[in-house]
Parts: sequence; structure tokens; C-alpha cells
Amino acid sequence: MDLSIIGYDPAGAWKKTAATLDELLSHKNSGGISWINIDGLEQSDVINRLAEVFKIHSLTVEDILDTEQRPKAEEFDDYLFITLKAVNPNAELDFEQISLVVTDDTVISFQEKPGDYFDGIRKRILNNAGRIRRMGADYLAYRIMDAVVDEYFVILDSLGSGIEEFEDRAIDAGDRDFIKDIQKLKQDLLRVRRVIWPLRESLSVLMRMESKRISGSLEPFLKDLHDNILQAAETVETYRELIAGVMEINLSSMSNRMNNVMKVLTIISTIFIPLTFIVGVYGMNFTHMPELEYPYAYPIVWGIMALIAVGMIIFFKRRRWM
Amino acid sequence: MDLSIIGYDPAGAWKKTAATLDELLSHKNSGGISWINIDGLEQSDVINRLAEVFKIHSLTVEDILDTEQRPKAEEFDDYLFITLKAVNPNAELDFEQISLVVTDDTVISFQEKPGDYFDGIRKRILNNAGRIRRMGADYLAYRIMDAVVDEYFVILDSLGSGIEEFEDRAIDAGDRDFIKDIQKLKQDLLRVRRVIWPLRESLSVLMRMESKRISGSLEPFLKDLHDNILQAAETVETYRELIAGVMEINLSSMSNRMNNVMKVLTIISTIFIPLTFIVGVYGMNFTHMPELEYPYAYPIVWGIMALIAVGMIIFFKRRRWM
Amino acid sequence: MDLSIIGYDPAGAWKKTAATLDELLSHKNSGGISWINIDGLEQSDVINRLAEVFKIHSLTVEDILDTEQRPKAEEFDDYLFITLKAVNPNAELDFEQISLVVTDDTVISFQEKPGDYFDGIRKRILNNAGRIRRMGADYLAYRIMDAVVDEYFVILDSLGSGIEEFEDRAIDAGDRDFIKDIQKLKQDLLRVRRVIWPLRESLSVLMRMESKRISGSLEPFLKDLHDNILQAAETVETYRELIAGVMEINLSSMSNRMNNVMKVLTIISTIFIPLTFIVGVYGMNFTHMPELEYPYAYPIVWGIMALIAVGMIIFFKRRRWM
Amino acid sequence: MDLSIIGYDPAGAWKKTAATLDELLSHKNSGGISWINIDGLEQSDVINRLAEVFKIHSLTVEDILDTEQRPKAEEFDDYLFITLKAVNPNAELDFEQISLVVTDDTVISFQEKPGDYFDGIRKRILNNAGRIRRMGADYLAYRIMDAVVDEYFVILDSLGSGIEEFEDRAIDAGDRDFIKDIQKLKQDLLRVRRVIWPLRESLSVLMRMESKRISGSLEPFLKDLHDNILQAAETVETYRELIAGVMEINLSSMSNRMNNVMKVLTIISTIFIPLTFIVGVYGMNFTHMPELEYPYAYPIVWGIMALIAVGMIIFFKRRRWM
Amino acid sequence: MDLSIIGYDPAGAWKKTAATLDELLSHKNSGGISWINIDGLEQSDVINRLAEVFKIHSLTVEDILDTEQRPKAEEFDDYLFITLKAVNPNAELDFEQISLVVTDDTVISFQEKPGDYFDGIRKRILNNAGRIRRMGADYLAYRIMDAVVDEYFVILDSLGSGIEEFEDRAIDAGDRDFIKDIQKLKQDLLRVRRVIWPLRESLSVLMRMESKRISGSLEPFLKDLHDNILQAAETVETYRELIAGVMEINLSSMSNRMNNVMKVLTIISTIFIPLTFIVGVYGMNFTHMPELEYPYAYPIVWGIMALIAVGMIIFFKRRRWM
Repeated sequence: MDLSIIGYDPAGAWKKTAATLDELLSHKNSGGISWINIDGLEQSDVINRLAEVFKIHSLTVEDILDTEQRPKAEEFDDYLFITLKAVNPNAELDFEQISLVVTDDTVISFQEKPGDYFDGIRKRILNNAGRIRRMGADYLAYRIMDAVVDEYFVILDSLGSGIEEFEDRAIDAGDRDFIKDIQKLKQDLLRVRRVIWPLRESLSVLMRMESKRISGSLEPFLKDLHDNILQAAETVETYRELIAGVMEINLSSMSNRMNNVMKVLTIISTIFIPLTFIVGVYGMNFTHMPELEYPYAYPIVWGIMALIAVGMIIFFKRRRWM
Repeated sequence: MDLSIIGYDPAGAWKKTAATLDELLSHKNSGGISWINIDGLEQSDVINRLAEVFKIHSLTVEDILDTEQRPKAEEFDDYLFITLKAVNPNAELDFEQISLVVTDDTVISFQEKPGDYFDGIRKRILNNAGRIRRMGADYLAYRIMDAVVDEYFVILDSLGSGIEEFEDRAIDAGDRDFIKDIQKLKQDLLRVRRVIWPLRESLSVLMRMESKRISGSLEPFLKDLHDNILQAAETVETYRELIAGVMEINLSSMSNRMNNVMKVLTIISTIFIPLTFIVGVYGMNFTHMPELEYPYAYPIVWGIMALIAVGMIIFFKRRRWM
Repeated sequence: MDLSIIGYDPAGAWKKTAATLDELLSHKNSGGISWINIDGLEQSDVINRLAEVFKIHSLTVEDILDTEQRPKAEEFDDYLFITLKAVNPNAELDFEQISLVVTDDTVISFQEKPGDYFDGIRKRILNNAGRIRRMGADYLAYRIMDAVVDEYFVILDSLGSGIEEFEDRAIDAGDRDFIKDIQKLKQDLLRVRRVIWPLRESLSVLMRMESKRISGSLEPFLKDLHDNILQAAETVETYRELIAGVMEINLSSMSNRMNNVMKVLTIISTIFIPLTFIVGVYGMNFTHMPELEYPYAYPIVWGIMALIAVGMIIFFKRRRWM
Repeated sequence: MDLSIIGYDPAGAWKKTAATLDELLSHKNSGGISWINIDGLEQSDVINRLAEVFKIHSLTVEDILDTEQRPKAEEFDDYLFITLKAVNPNAELDFEQISLVVTDDTVISFQEKPGDYFDGIRKRILNNAGRIRRMGADYLAYRIMDAVVDEYFVILDSLGSGIEEFEDRAIDAGDRDFIKDIQKLKQDLLRVRRVIWPLRESLSVLMRMESKRISGSLEPFLKDLHDNILQAAETVETYRELIAGVMEINLSSMSNRMNNVMKVLTIISTIFIPLTFIVGVYGMNFTHMPELEYPYAYPIVWGIMALIAVGMIIFFKRRRWM
Repeated sequence: MDLSIIGYDPAGAWKKTAATLDELLSHKNSGGISWINIDGLEQSDVINRLAEVFKIHSLTVEDILDTEQRPKAEEFDDYLFITLKAVNPNAELDFEQISLVVTDDTVISFQEKPGDYFDGIRKRILNNAGRIRRMGADYLAYRIMDAVVDEYFVILDSLGSGIEEFEDRAIDAGDRDFIKDIQKLKQDLLRVRRVIWPLRESLSVLMRMESKRISGSLEPFLKDLHDNILQAAETVETYRELIAGVMEINLSSMSNRMNNVMKVLTIISTIFIPLTFIVGVYGMNFTHMPELEYPYAYPIVWGIMALIAVGMIIFFKRRRWM
């Protein structure tokens, strides 16, 4: 469990790490904004102590510790609570729960494991880039959510580029893993969707909340974030439709191949089966078969068989099977 | 029919069972909260007597006795009425109707058959664990609903783990029961969905109700429960999509196998049918077949046949059938 | 056309039939509630006369006479108008239109043909069972609607039991009528749905109406009826999903059978076609075929053919076709 | 372009046609209601002049002239504007745009080409049938819309009767046009739906509009019309489901036929291929084939072949292929 | 990057281009309306300078520069911001982002690359056609959006005409690219839909906004534009359904062809396989085969074979396979 605190106001900013929670809390910024970051959820006593100090509701503590929690945003008497899922851009679609407790002058962020999602924000604070030092705790919470949502687009882009590749694989007869791989992609999209959709609601809740903890100047930022989430959600739906299209191509191409196999079988069989019957006739051992002695019988039979074969080929050509 | 009553207030708690309803009612807690639990619905006179004592509407009595009732929450003049379905975690997806009548200081819970869904709550009351003794009847009703909803996740987990197993069965040609078993799973999910969806509405109703029987401090708990139910509902939908994916894998794999069977048939047939025709030709008994006497005719015919076979194999290789 | 009138108040109740409308109207209850029932819609003069007496809007008269009317509930200045479809429980999904005109002290019910849907209500009134005599015309209208909705569950149960039977038929290869019969069932469900869905809206309209003709004490009854209709509607949707599942079983089982037929054909063909080629070779009549004279040639050929057959069988076993 | 005007009030009614717009406008009824009908949209100067006289917004003029306009209802300062599609009951699903401009005392109707949709309304006005002469311009507009919607049911009935016919065609193997014809029907339904759905919105708009141009007494009529449009919309959806069912029957029946073809091929092939192998064996010309000289060899071979054939037939019977 | 400005008021209009932004801004119309058009987004300093002058929020600047932005409409303190996608009618479905900043007397439009979408509007302003010079900046913004939406119909018409062509290709067995081409069309429609749907919301937002920057006289124009966008959206949905229909035709026609191939194979095979068996029988070399010496045996065998063939043909005719 890593504990760190960043304090800032328009005039300055500093960052501290601490071994114990009480040491950390001693650093808390009196005048400006404090950002407490907790990496790892294994020490519940630390979290319970935090809950006591910041008057966090027992339900919120449960939600922070239950990493299967559905993304949501709620207002309590003393703070806003927001929980959402970050996606690890380096790994194979690995989600991690981020929880935010936003009071008037403090943001407490909880991560499941140490990560560098928020390094960009930390740099902006410490280097006084952009407007962040002049804004309140609500803006910091917005920046954190924004950083999480930005990662969704990275993962969606990587999933999306996979779809194009599947378009070629869909018509490759030898690709035995096609169906399993594309179902895997569909399941990944399903998982991303489960993370994005409730977030959309959360943003709506935040925008409608009229909490005194969300200042009027944050409104355009929340709207913008909401639009980004909508776009991610629409991208997921578009990908699902594209995948459905790829599967239709695959189905159609399998059906086509089957048709071709059948046609070759039918053509060869229907040409040779009657001919084989004819040669069978003159392989019979009847004593009285006058044709057998007729001198030109053999070439005549060849001629008849050639006629049958040519007739068959014409028939197939007419039906456009060849 | 089992009758039991638990009384509690912040200072203490006790539990009694009784043979008759009137004995039970004599135990009713005057100052604190009473929880009356009725196991079994067969003695309608007991329930009618209860209805008289607590001024329960005849429609509510009907709803309690009709175990096919749809989950719902309603406010009457003297009480809240909530009915929902509990799932028996030990059995094979076996639902049981739980009805709650919540007055200002009493919760009456009706179960179809004796069960131990609520033992955890009873222990918390008797051992004074958590906040339950300090809260009202509304909080007790919330705890009961929460206990019921928790079981949904147990059953959903067990259904969900079944889906993964089906992913392997989907490509197993010899699995004759696959389609019946997966349809069974789909039907089970359908049944769970029918239980969860109306509950979502019930929670919305309770949250919007603005009843004096639901105190303001219960709001975050109801929201949390609502979120849990939403999550269960989303899990059901996700499972349904996963099952659809598994069935697509199965369909595709059946189609693939069919293609392979056809290819083998076609390859063998198209190679040997022309060769069989050729050997048939030289099995004819015509008197005048000059080739028959030619000394090298036999090896030449073998050579021609070998050429045809090799040609066919090259043709199939080119088409990627082999 | 049958005309009847029931009059009641908390003190008493009576029933009269009449040959003409004016005779019927002379019986109208001055103090209490009157229920006029008209069986058959063929005599439009009677209905027009009723419309005149009760100030029924010409649109309502049209709606009563047009038996293809969509279920609906509307408030007019002098009455509520409700129309819905009753299902005849004895016949093969036969719907009949019931129209209700509800004034302050009178319910006029119109049926397409004489039927006994409402005998239970009549008995309750005449025997003073339950609360009906103490309630107003709105409660009577509710009881009539409730009686109609109860029949939906009878018909839904009978349709539902049909689905289970189809689950067995879905895998029976010889059942040629399966697809037609299941489509028939789907069409029946479609018809039931068309009757139930608008009724849901009607109930919502009635509940939101805030008409002085609907007393506050009716509210829980309307809610209960609304829940029943919702449950019927959900049952229809569940049945539709079950049918879709049964059709998937059927499709999959047809596909499976096809696969099995193909496998048998392929196994037999691929074993014997090469063998037939070999015996054809030694049936050729070339003069110079040294093998023919070799004494052990015949058993050797048998041995080779046995080897080929065994090799093929091993190949099929490996591919799990046998 | 045909110009006509009908004037009426409770006391009387008259109809005039005119060669020019100004002549027509000179007939305008001062006290009562005027109905101006314009057949044909080719003379835009006439329409522009009308727009000037009745202060019609330029957007409305554009909408009247653009016959690809989506059905809609809008209120402007001086008039209501309603546009909808009439269907020509005599032709092959041929739509025509009808636009209505409704002022306080005038209805101007625009048709694409001369037609007789509204002759019934004209007769009612001139013969003083029903309430039309006593009502305002809003009622006249309602009657016109009602006449248009009535035609939808004619066309829907004719499309619906087509579906039943398709149910028989779905199982007819020789019907090569089935799929094209049913797709044609689906496209027709799609076109009807595109006409009906926006009309539903239009009616909702009109009902919610609270315009002073729509009198309170019109409300039940608009509701009734709204219900009719809803019913037409539901009929379209039902037809679409029925068609989906018919296509499932067709697919299943094609699949069944394929199965039967395959079974016959498999039965014949698997019986005769082994027998042909056996007779091939004894057609070989080896010098040392002891069976050939054995006197009962021939009938024994026949016996063996008969046993094989019978065995095969039993095998097929057991598998229920015969 | 091209900079241009158009100034106008009811009295006059002029157009200027400028090399630098400050030169451009010096031309700004003091009394009337100014329209600043920026072609190309590569010089972010110009855009930042503009943002400073017109007090444009940093989020808006980001949205202008991010060409993957979702269409939206937002109100800020000093301006309205609208972003939408224009479709290049000459190219292959090539979208370009158009952003509009609308202040009280100025419209600033940003295009990704130089284009002639708005030449028509420019001409109307300079030639004083229609009402544009008499209206405010809001009307100019409407005209620009209207011009963009008009192009959607051009592209939709061109996509729609492609569908009809596919209807013929769907039944052409030799068309190997059918499935890929139709999936391409579906993807194009998907892209158009992603552009149109959010625009619908944008218009709703603008109509509900009650901004002082949108005058009451603009309302009918916005409604009209909203209707146009709805119609485009409905057209997309209709096309998607038509494409689904075409794919059903294709599937059915592939299935039909397969059936026909199978039938020919089955007919030829089932006729000749038994006959080939018979001739094989009399090709056997048994010493004791009494039939062989019988003088009429040969013609009798021919007769039997003819009977079998005729019997088979009758069987096939009866089954309607021929």
C-alpha cells in the first residue's frame, strides 16, 4: 500500500509520500487543495481510519473495497463518491477499480494497484501547467476521470484495428481459430461496454446533481467528458456491428466453399457414372452379345461415351456450374 | 407454519417463537422494533388474523398468498408492502416468494417454506453487530432485501461458470446434449431475469416514494441496493450475449465439420471415379480391342492413371482442399 | 340482443332482464349503482337510444360498434369509456370485444355475444360477497376488467404448456408439421400480445387520469390489475423467447441429422471406392498382365484391400467420425 | 392544376370551381368556414400568391412543394400546417402528399394530383350529414386526415391477405419467385411504415399543442384518430413478424427437402457400393481364384449380397431414415 | 490556411480575404453581421488568437482542433458552439469536420480543408437573395448547417441507388465480391449514421436551449432542419433493412443453387448405381452362371435395367425433383 499526498494552491504545489496514514494526514494542505492517493486496498484499517477522518459512509467504504463494484456517482452529506474502472493500456484488457472521494478541499483517490495513470496530472499540478492550480477539488476529480476515459480510446483503437484484420481472416478457409478469436474480441468489447455504459449514467448524475461541491465553471468540462464517453460507447456499438458484418462474410464464404466442393463432386460424378455403366455393360460375360463381335463396336462405344461426356459438359456450362 | 418474533431497540434484543399467533403478538415490542417472521403460507386464518391486527388490505393478503406474484413495492395507508423472489442457493434454481409488510415499528416477513436466508440478519440483531439495532423498521426491511439480492449473485456466479464450460463443449462433435443443455441454461437465465427486472422497478418505486416510513438516512442504502440489482440485471444480459456467442461457435464448428466431411468424400470420389472408368474400359469383352494385345499396354494404363491421380491431387492442393 | 340490469347498494341487490331498452331503463336504480349489460351489438337503434340517455359521444358509439377497436381508456365529460378484448376460454383463441361506459352511478357493459364471463361478479353482487356492494361504479368496472384479465392467464397457461410439448417434437426427425405448428403458436402469442399491450397503456391512463369518477380507494386495485397485466405481458415475452429456443434446438437437430447422413455416406463411399478400383484393375483383359498368373496374387490383393479398409477405418476413428 | 372552394356554415353550403386563384378567393366565405382545395403543385405562382394572402411562411411553401417531405404538424403564428401521405387505394402502393394549412376559418388542402379521397367529406358538407357544418375549420382538417388514415387500412388489409398466400408458397419447392416476392412485400410494408410512424408523432404534436386553433371539442376526435394510427402501426409490426415466420417456414422446408434428397442418395449409394465391390471381385481375371469353379459359388454370392442389402435396410430403418 | 470574412447588413454586403488574422479582424463589421471562415486547422496560433479575441473556452478550441469530435451543440457564456460533419459529395464518403462559433453578431466557421460547401450561401448574401441579409447571426449558422445536411441526402441517394443494383447481384451465382461489396455498403451506412444521429440531438439541444442568441423567428427553421435530419436518419434505417432483405435473397438463392446441385447428383447417382451393380453381376467369371448361356439373357437384362431407370425417373417426378 502506497500513500502519497499532493497539496497545491494557485501560488505553489508540493508532493509527499508517507509510511503511515497519520503522517500523511499531517501534511494536509490547510488553505489549498489536497490530493491523497492510496495505491492498494489490502490494509482495511488504513481505509477505515480515513473514513473516520473524512466522515465517509460505511457503504462507501464497502464500495471502495469491493472491486467488482459497478461504476457510479453518488452525493453524500460530506463528499461526492465516484467509482469507475481504469483499463491498463499495457496489459491484455485488464481493468482496475478507481474510487474517488471528493470533499470541499480534498480528493482521495483509491487504486487497486500502483500505476501511472495519473502521472500526467501530477506533472501539470507540480509544473503549474494549464488551469489546474487555479481550480478546485471538483476540477481535479474531473481531470482524473478524464485521464481514465482517455485510456478507453487507446484500448478501443487497439480492438478496432483487430477487426480489420479479421476481415481478411473471414475468407481464409484454413483459419481454424477464426471463430474462437472473433468471439474473444466480442467478449472483450462486451467487457469494455460494461465499463463504459454505467459511466455515462454517472456523468449524467454528476451534471444533474446541482451539488455545491461542483462549481458552475466545471459544467462545460463535465459535458465534454460526457460527450467523450458517449463517443466511446458509440464506438463500441459500431465495432459490434462491424464484427457482425465480418461474421456474415465468414458464413457466406464457408457456404460458398461448400457449394464449390459440391459442384466439383457433382460434375465428376455425373460425367463418369454413366460412362462407367456403359463400359460395365460390355464387360458382361453373356454368350450371346452380338455387339461384342462387331468390328467397329469398340470405337463406336468410345464415340458414344465422348458424346455423353460433351453433352454433360454443355449441360453444366449452361447451368453456369463450370 | 413457523411463527417467530424478534424484538430489539438500541439497548437490547430477544427472540421468541410461538405456537399461535396471539401468543406471538403478546410478545410484540412496545417501544422498539419487532420483526415477525411467518414460515409457510398454508394457514390462511393466521394470515387473515394478522391482516386484521395490522390493517393489511385484502389485496395485500391476496398478493402474499399468490406465490406467482410479480415482485413489486407499494405503499398503503398503514404500511409498505414489498414482495420479491428469493432463490434457494442449495437447490437447482428454485425460487421462493418473500413478502414484507413494513409498518412504523414492525416488519412482518412471509416465507413460502422454512429457510435460513435471514439467519445472518438475526445474528447481527442479537449480537448488536453493525448499526441495525440503532435503525428503524425500514432499515430491517432493507437488510432483508439485501440478503435476498446477495443470493442472486451466488446463483449468477454458478450459472456464469457453466457458460465457460459450454465454450469447450461447443466444438466437441460428439456432444449430443449440447444444444439441449445450453437451452436449459438460457431458460434458467430467463427465469432469473424475470425475478430481477421487476425488482429494479420496485427499488425505483421505493426511492421515489417519499414515504414517511422511509427515513432519509435509508436513501444511500436503497441506492446501493438499486445499484446491486442493476449489476445483477447487467450480468444476466452479458451472460445472454456470451451464450449467443457460444452458440455461434457451435454452429460454425458444425458447419466446419460438415465441410471437412464433404471434402474427404469429394477428394476420394473425384480421384477414383475416373480411374475406375478407365479400368472398366479395358474390362470390356469386345473382340476387336487392339490395345489389349499390345505388350506394354498394361503398364501404360497404370502410368496414365497415375498421371490423372497426381493431376487431381495438384488441383485439390491449389484449391487448398488438402 | 340480451338486455339485463343489476341494481345494488349496501342494503340489497336485484337483477332484471327486459325485452326493450325503455323497460330496462325504467328499472334503473335511483339511489345505488346500476349495471346494464348488453349482449350483442346488432341492434344499433338500442345503442343509439342508450347513447342519447347517457349522453354518450358519437365516437364512443362508433368504438363500441367497431369490434376491431384497439383496447383503450378515455375520459369524456359524462363518463369513462374503456374497451378491451375478452378471450373465450373454451374456444380456440377467440377474442370478443367488451366495452364499458362508466358514469357516476352506472356501468354499461357491451358484449359481442352472450357469454358467462361475468357470472362470478353477478353472484358476488347478489350474494353480497366481499366489498363490491359497498363500493361505487368504478369498483364494478374494475371487477369486470379483472375478470377479463384473469382469463388471459388461463389462455397463456394453455399456450405455455404447448411449448414444452414442442421441445420434444423439435428433435423428432419425422415430425413434418413441427414448423407449421410452432409458427401457429407464435401467431397465437402475437394475437394475445396485441390484446394485452394496449391494455397496459389503458391502465396507466386510468391511474394517471385523476378523474372524479375514480375514487382514491380504487387506486390499489388499479395498481394490482396493472401488475397483473404486466405479468401477462412478460409471460408472452418469455414464451416468445422459449419458442425461439425451441426453434434453435430444431435447427441444430436438423443440422446434426444431416451431418450424420453425410458421414455414413462418406465412410461407405471412401472405403469401397478405392477397393472397387483395385478389383476393376484385375478385371481388365490385357493379354500381358503378369500378376494374373501369379499363384498367390488373389490372396495378396485381398490382403492389400483389407489393409486399405482398415487404414480408412483408423483414419475415420481418429477424426471421430465413427 | 384544379382550384375549388367549398363554403359552409350551419345554415348552408356551396361549392365553386375557378380558373384563377383570385376568382377563387373572391368566393371566400366571410362568415362561415371555407375549404380551398388545390389539385396539382406545378404552378408555383398560384401557391406563392396563396402564401401571400394567408401569410404562409416560406418554409411551409417549400414543404408543400417538396413532395418527399416527411409527415409532420407544426403551428405557425397564423395557421397550423399539417402534411401527410395519402395512399392511392386503386394503384400499386402509390403515395401522394397531402398538405393542409388550417387558419381560423379556412382549410387549404394541397394534393399532388386530382383524386377523389375527399368526395365523401364534400358530400357530408353539402348534404349537411353529421356534425360537420356545425364545427370549425379544425374539425374539417380532422375529417381530411381521418379520410387519409382510413385508406391505410384498405392497403394494409390487401397486404395482409398477401401474407396468408405466402404461407402456402413457403413450402412449395417449385416456387422460384417466393423469396423475391416476399422481399417485395417487406419493402412495401417498410414504405407504409415510413408513412405511418411520423404521423403518430404529428398527432401527438397536435394533441399537446394547446393551440387556440384546436377547440376543446376536437380532443376526443384527435385521440380517436391517434388510436387508429397506432392500430395501423401495430398492424404493420404484426405483419412484419408474420412475414419473418413465413420465411422461417420457407427456410426450414428448404432444409428439410435437402435432407430428404441427401437421404435418398445415401441409402442408394450405401446399399449398392459394397455390392458393386463384391461383383467386381469375381470379375477379376486371376488364374488362381478357387471360388470361381465352385458350383454353388454364384448363388452363395447372391445370398451374401442379399444379406448385406437387408442389413443396410435394417440399419436405415433403425436410424429412421426410411 | 485560408482566412476570409463576409460582412453584411440589410443595406449591403462585402467579402474580404486576408493573409493574417489581425488584418482579417480589422475588417470586422461593426454594425452588421460578420462571417469569418477559416479553412484548415494546421495553424493553431491563429485559432488561439481567435479564441482570445472572441473569449472562446479552451474546451471549444480543443473540440475544433480534434477532428474526431462527435457532433454536438453547446452554449457558453459568450457564444454558441456547434460542430458537425460535412460529407464531401465528390469523393468516396469522405467526412470533414465543420465547427461553428456563433456570437451575437459574428459566425466563425472552421473547415478542415478548403471546400465549396458554402458558396451558395455566400452568393445569397452578396446578391441579397432571400431573407438572409435581414436576419441575424443565428440564421447564418442555420443556413450553414442546412447546407451541410443537404449534402447528406446527395450521399444517401447515391448509396440508395447502390442497393437496387445489389438486388440483381444477390441472385448471380458468379458474383464472388457480392458479400464483401454489400458489407462495404453497410459500413458506409454505419459511418453516415454515426454522423447523423448525434446531429439530431444537437438540433434538439438548440431547440430547447432558450438561448438569447437564438431568436424566436429561427424556431420554424430549426424545426424544419430537425425534420430533415430525422428523415435522413430514417432513410439510413430503411436502407439497412433493405440491405438485410438483399442478404436474405442472397442466402436463399445460394441455398437454392446448392439444392439444385445436390438434386442432379442424386438423380444421376441413384439411377446408374443400381444399373452398374447389375452389369457388374454379369461381368463375374464364375464357371457356373446359368444365365450367361441363356440366349435371350442379354436383351432381358437390358429390359430390366430400362424398367429400373424408368421407375427411378417416375419416383423423382413424383417427389418433384425433376
